[in-house]
Amino acid sequence: MHKIPVGILGASGYVGRELCQLVVDHPSLSLAFATANEQRGQHATFSGEDIVFGAMEDAPLNQAELVFSALPHGASSHWVGRASEAGAQVVDLSQDLRPGTGPDGIPYGLPELMRSKIKGARIVANPGCYPTVMLLALAPAIRGGLIRADSPVSVVAASGVTGAGSSPKPEMMFAEVGENYRAYAVGNSHRHMLEVRAIIKSLGGDFDVVFTPHLLPVSRGILATITVALNEAVDAPSEIWRAFYEAEPFVQIVDEAPSLKQVVHRNSVLINLHRAEKVRTPTLIIVAAIDNLMKGAAGQAVQNANLLLGLDEGQGLRA
Amino acid sequence: MHKIPVGILGASGYVGRELCQLVVDHPSLSLAFATANEQRGQHATFSGEDIVFGAMEDAPLNQAELVFSALPHGASSHWVGRASEAGAQVVDLSQDLRPGTGPDGIPYGLPELMRSKIKGARIVANPGCYPTVMLLALAPAIRGGLIRADSPVSVVAASGVTGAGSSPKPEMMFAEVGENYRAYAVGNSHRHMLEVRAIIKSLGGDFDVVFTPHLLPVSRGILATITVALNEAVDAPSEIWRAFYEAEPFVQIVDEAPSLKQVVHRNSVLINLHRAEKVRTPTLIIVAAIDNLMKGAAGQAVQNANLLLGLDEGQGLRA
Amino acid sequence: MHKIPVGILGASGYVGRELCQLVVDHPSLSLAFATANEQRGQHATFSGEDIVFGAMEDAPLNQAELVFSALPHGASSHWVGRASEAGAQVVDLSQDLRPGTGPDGIPYGLPELMRSKIKGARIVANPGCYPTVMLLALAPAIRGGLIRADSPVSVVAASGVTGAGSSPKPEMMFAEVGENYRAYAVGNSHRHMLEVRAIIKSLGGDFDVVFTPHLLPVSRGILATITVALNEAVDAPSEIWRAFYEAEPFVQIVDEAPSLKQVVHRNSVLINLHRAEKVRTPTLIIVAAIDNLMKGAAGQAVQNANLLLGLDEGQGLRA
Amino acid sequence: MHKIPVGILGASGYVGRELCQLVVDHPSLSLAFATANEQRGQHATFSGEDIVFGAMEDAPLNQAELVFSALPHGASSHWVGRASEAGAQVVDLSQDLRPGTGPDGIPYGLPELMRSKIKGARIVANPGCYPTVMLLALAPAIRGGLIRADSPVSVVAASGVTGAGSSPKPEMMFAEVGENYRAYAVGNSHRHMLEVRAIIKSLGGDFDVVFTPHLLPVSRGILATITVALNEAVDAPSEIWRAFYEAEPFVQIVDEAPSLKQVVHRNSVLINLHRAEKVRTPTLIIVAAIDNLMKGAAGQAVQNANLLLGLDEGQGLRA
Repeated sequence: MHKIPVGILGASGYVGRELCQLVVDHPSLSLAFATANEQRGQHATFSGEDIVFGAMEDAPLNQAELVFSALPHGASSHWVGRASEAGAQVVDLSQDLRPGTGPDGIPYGLPELMRSKIKGARIVANPGCYPTVMLLALAPAIRGGLIRADSPVSVVAASGVTGAGSSPKPEMMFAEVGENYRAYAVGNSHRHMLEVRAIIKSLGGDFDVVFTPHLLPVSRGILATITVALNEAVDAPSEIWRAFYEAEPFVQIVDEAPSLKQVVHRNSVLINLHRAEKVRTPTLIIVAAIDNLMKGAAGQAVQNANLLLGLDEGQGLRA
Repeated sequence: MHKIPVGILGASGYVGRELCQLVVDHPSLSLAFATANEQRGQHATFSGEDIVFGAMEDAPLNQAELVFSALPHGASSHWVGRASEAGAQVVDLSQDLRPGTGPDGIPYGLPELMRSKIKGARIVANPGCYPTVMLLALAPAIRGGLIRADSPVSVVAASGVTGAGSSPKPEMMFAEVGENYRAYAVGNSHRHMLEVRAIIKSLGGDFDVVFTPHLLPVSRGILATITVALNEAVDAPSEIWRAFYEAEPFVQIVDEAPSLKQVVHRNSVLINLHRAEKVRTPTLIIVAAIDNLMKGAAGQAVQNANLLLGLDEGQGLRA
Repeated sequence: MHKIPVGILGASGYVGRELCQLVVDHPSLSLAFATANEQRGQHATFSGEDIVFGAMEDAPLNQAELVFSALPHGASSHWVGRASEAGAQVVDLSQDLRPGTGPDGIPYGLPELMRSKIKGARIVANPGCYPTVMLLALAPAIRGGLIRADSPVSVVAASGVTGAGSSPKPEMMFAEVGENYRAYAVGNSHRHMLEVRAIIKSLGGDFDVVFTPHLLPVSRGILATITVALNEAVDAPSEIWRAFYEAEPFVQIVDEAPSLKQVVHRNSVLINLHRAEKVRTPTLIIVAAIDNLMKGAAGQAVQNANLLLGLDEGQGLRA
Repeated sequence: MHKIPVGILGASGYVGRELCQLVVDHPSLSLAFATANEQRGQHATFSGEDIVFGAMEDAPLNQAELVFSALPHGASSHWVGRASEAGAQVVDLSQDLRPGTGPDGIPYGLPELMRSKIKGARIVANPGCYPTVMLLALAPAIRGGLIRADSPVSVVAASGVTGAGSSPKPEMMFAEVGENYRAYAVGNSHRHMLEVRAIIKSLGGDFDVVFTPHLLPVSRGILATITVALNEAVDAPSEIWRAFYEAEPFVQIVDEAPSLKQVVHRNSVLINLHRAEKVRTPTLIIVAAIDNLMKGAAGQAVQNANLLLGLDEGQGLRA
């Protein structure tokens, strides 16, 4: 069977390697090339297939029908342009082209919320990991006009270490991370808030979000705990969310608060809803979990690629 | 030098053993007895001192000037009564006598907020671990009237496994907890909220708290991330908190968000304050950390015991 | 396509669940039933397929062409007999039927060493996890007569916690296992030595093995470090091992000492060989790794089932 | 009370910081200076005492009666010479002056085996972490002539990550070390073997040691598992070891195999002995544990400093 050749730029990091694995295992895609400047010439094996990382400059862009860019923020947009000029469709995993940072008109690759815009596109900006879980958890409330405008939505999220990339940093050593837990970017200053605010606005939301990310002593996974004051009490929030995501294979509304173990190595988001007891202001607690490397990065990128290429959206992905 | 004899009821759990260690190392206390029904007759060593756990019924209550009860909720109040009748002062670490659960009039052992009431008491109800960190983090805002009444305060906290006790449970096995993270008691239903609401009220607070605890793959430590909408913007929150806790050796206002590693094996609480960027509603993010077995349980119990016995409050404790 | 119906007895433990997953994902097998007395009536999901655990007594043994028994030692042999009487072929993962414990004549399911005997069998005794890695690592040396008879072979192995089963035990709690490491069954007393000694003898080996297992703070994986005094120096041990395992898809001789991460979720054994520097007695150090739940249990059981059923030996398994 | 001023060279690594902590808490020592070239000017707090790391060149060597050097191998001996010329006694924690590497005549700081030589010295070479545990575990067998000369002693040891130093390396990141375990320096090539072989010889031993170290996903602690073929069977090995170490406060012969949790933050070595069952060659299995930063480095350095300064050997150390 003919497989569609795709290329991966920036293939040696955690996200890049996850992409290599997904492409090699994908029933309709084949890996045309994978670049990794710092590790060029090095070999890696995915499901028995031997890959040699090439240099960026040597990337045979015109041999790929679709290119994934997992290059660092800042470096990516240049290569997205070159790949696009060479005729490839592109899924860019960097922040460079996302709302709030990049130019207007590039669709944001959150299929559950933006599918129609993604389908006809040449280039898609794949969302950040935190925005993915946050926006999917909040979207039914935004669209339903449930969220009070004058009370900030609190998003406290915790991520495994692969979210911080694979280059060695003192604060990511085992001796620092193990038996530890800490917040970072405290004060609502995480750069992911740029796209979060832009998308909330585009969905018709009008409220403050205060986001505090944390670092967990685990490899992968993100769990977000969201506290939302409501305009009025809602009897059965789970039913609203279930109706909203009825046809979505990668979103599951669950009755028990999810754990990271339930989502790792899967492209799903699990969302759980509880009404807060014993409060005067009706308040919802939403707990949502994804694998930061799957639905938070490489898995969602493949989901977008499937859409761009006219394949079944879930091909090569585990729900 | 004469040391004051103290007894420990329920000495074999994580909190009980931490108490044994603190008492054995304490310059003014000696361990008169330690009971542990299920492990009675078993030995344990603390700083080279061999302890034999006795049966509850054999506890020589009248040999202790002060008794710590680390018995389970429900079972503790009976023994607190018997120890008190035998003439001992008592620090009860269970929930039985805390505000919202127990009878009125028993002081709540949070010295930084309630010192004068603790000093003259015969019995003190030692606070829960989550309430300790939450209330110390919020107290300056409550007393200062900073918190908006109509917007729920979000408290998202994460605890190490020793907070769940030492009896074997399937969900606390290494294979379940390692590489995992999850919320529990979602919906504001944690029993610690009883004392939290009572104390907030007694401090003059009038707002909703929505609390969501989480389980971390670490042994010990609690980190709470609190999002608070303010009545009006505050320029320098750290200065307000520093002034409030000026003379307190066990409270430190820090400029960087604290990590668990900074507090384990210490009786301190570290509190960090940030104003949220880019929000219309002035909002404060408070990150606070304690060791759940020290300031969250045994350490604070010794701090209370020092107060009851007229000793220096910090004796035997590491800040 | 017609799939061969198989049953799983004892399906709710770590090994049983791994078997369920492998069977559900297997291209030629379908799951006819799965029993789990303590969890009967409970549901579990594998690759989207919902499984209900049945009671042992209700197992429709005659509906399965092959039955896996992951029942506890002692309890298994009875059910193996009943399944066999009902007409099913059986792969027994307990110790009950292994050499040194069970009756003579039941083949030992280590395909790389015993393939011809397995192929024609009705019942196979699936090896223990430690014996699998130890025997595969040593077999070329045994068959080659390389091992000195008068110097004990030291096998020091370390296993993840899933090797200890899923029932809650105090010593397997996160607070005990995390940040810890310890030996157990010290003194060469591990029950797996029964089959190890029997198989070494059957391979023509005549030397002592001294085995010391350890518990690692990881979920899965076994790494064995074996020190072997040789009759005479060997120039290129890797070449001998490579020749021995030339056609084996699940054995890889590697040039760098393997790590657990390289084998988890795979059915492979990685073996690395080094000659000891600066010793008078020629000595080999063999480091070998497997996933205790895959090649050490469920994966190998499926490999054996494939052989019994005349399927391709590697079907449904990841090398 | 007058305290003896000591200096620390290379104070910012894991060992250096442990030394700072021990000196600050020591009843008879005070910290005169602490250098750390890469972190010069930075502050660190130990038991409430604020330390500023100075540059190496500015170290006021003549203000210290004793200097600890925790500098890297290769860089240390130069500074040991300068400190000694300035009149200070020196405990060198590097490999530079140890037997097999350094000049003859410098005592090896293993007090339990070399106390008399250490007492009169100006300079002591503090042992490596692995040699400490290995030599203390083996010494009674060496001195007793128990070990067979023609059968290699197998030493398999596993260490926490602090043994690898604090500089960031890709292979020491949390995502690589967590849920992993691997051997390194396989082939008997670890540089610690230089001192091990030299000391075994000086104790009268005449046998091969084959050493394979491993990396554990824990912060601190070393556990060594040693398999020794004996000249003849020994009835009660524990009694021999107990007699040998009778007066030693930091060596404990224990009846159960020790775990890392029992030794961390203590200066002790725990040693457990078992005779191997069902072997023709009488064989002993010795399991021994230390904290690599305490008895394996900083703790032992303080023990040596106490000896050099004529203080009680155990001052400032927890057994």
